[in-house]
Amino acid sequence: MAKVSTEGVGQFYHHYPRVATIVTVHTRGQDNAMAVAWHSSISFDPPLYGISISPKRFTYELILEAKEFGVNFMPMDKAELIASVGGISGREVDKFQRFGIAEEKPLKTSVPILKDAYAAYECKLVDHKVYGDHVWVVGEILASHFDEDLFTGEQVLDLKRVSPALYLGAELYTIPAKDIIRHLDRKVYGKR
Amino acid sequence: MAKVSTEGVGQFYHHYPRVATIVTVHTRGQDNAMAVAWHSSISFDPPLYGISISPKRFTYELILEAKEFGVNFMPMDKAELIASVGGISGREVDKFQRFGIAEEKPLKTSVPILKDAYAAYECKLVDHKVYGDHVWVVGEILASHFDEDLFTGEQVLDLKRVSPALYLGAELYTIPAKDIIRHLDRKVYGKR
Repeated sequence: MAKVSTEGVGQFYHHYPRVATIVTVHTRGQDNAMAVAWHSSISFDPPLYGISISPKRFTYELILEAKEFGVNFMPMDKAELIASVGGISGREVDKFQRFGIAEEKPLKTSVPILKDAYAAYECKLVDHKVYGDHVWVVGEILASHFDEDLFTGEQVLDLKRVSPALYLGAELYTIPAKDIIRHLDRKVYGKR
Repeated sequence: MAKVSTEGVGQFYHHYPRVATIVTVHTRGQDNAMAVAWHSSISFDPPLYGISISPKRFTYELILEAKEFGVNFMPMDKAELIASVGGISGREVDKFQRFGIAEEKPLKTSVPILKDAYAAYECKLVDHKVYGDHVWVVGEILASHFDEDLFTGEQVLDLKRVSPALYLGAELYTIPAKDIIRHLDRKVYGKR
């Protein structure tokens, strides 16, 4: 493919789409939530998950205090909720009340597990490190929650039954194709 | 959604799909490449990108030596290449020769930019930190490359024209839907 080359990154949207998440926290007797698109698994054993947050965000302050956070994976049919929690600060309103966010019980922490999420992780804060204008917040996954009906026996997302919200940048969202799947076994292809 | 709750994470596939990338490096007069699905943008200013790699991987050793790396975003019609470079170590073969990988010129580093990528970042290594069984390798993006025809004027990926390979876990890949896009402005939804 013929590419243009440029210093820096422009709008910095090339790396999208990414699964959109809602990060939750409970402290000071109150729940809070924010939208996070910059996140990744970073270790199998122990299972660690990283999220990138601006230190200006209220949720960041609360996570440092609570020393735990939840990562909730959201379906497209609840994508309005991602935009809603992403559009206002918990310093101004109680987002759970304002947006009528329904919760399920956590197992090992006090982080809110969203009823509308198809999967969620409960994380214990294990590190936070400043990188540029954001902080890389790392948690050990103590418990996971997922709708069994929406995953295959191998625990892979069943895209015929659920469409995760994929953030594209510029306030745009899409979903994965429902009917296209390829099995490309690295052990086979590495030996070609 | 009615979820089951469990300690730990099982197959740890709930957080997929993720855009599949090929990470590249040039050192010792040779190119190398590996498949990386665990990655994220982590700062706007400066633009920083993180990738999670096992310290056992040959590419990890080479990145520490070269102090730079490339992140190449791959379309589904080249997904075999992701599985191929992911299936064998650069300690055993020259993957660029073996798989006939075509390159374009980098701008600010010596990292291979893959011809088949629809976008790529050139990164200067700025940090590496062990988290569990992987290392979080962070680079500052010095230059970006992208096929202008495959992005909108806002630099958002045009899914009608290109289908990024999305890794689902368990050696399975899918693509984003070509015809579903929603605009959900957080500034609007946050004020509802």
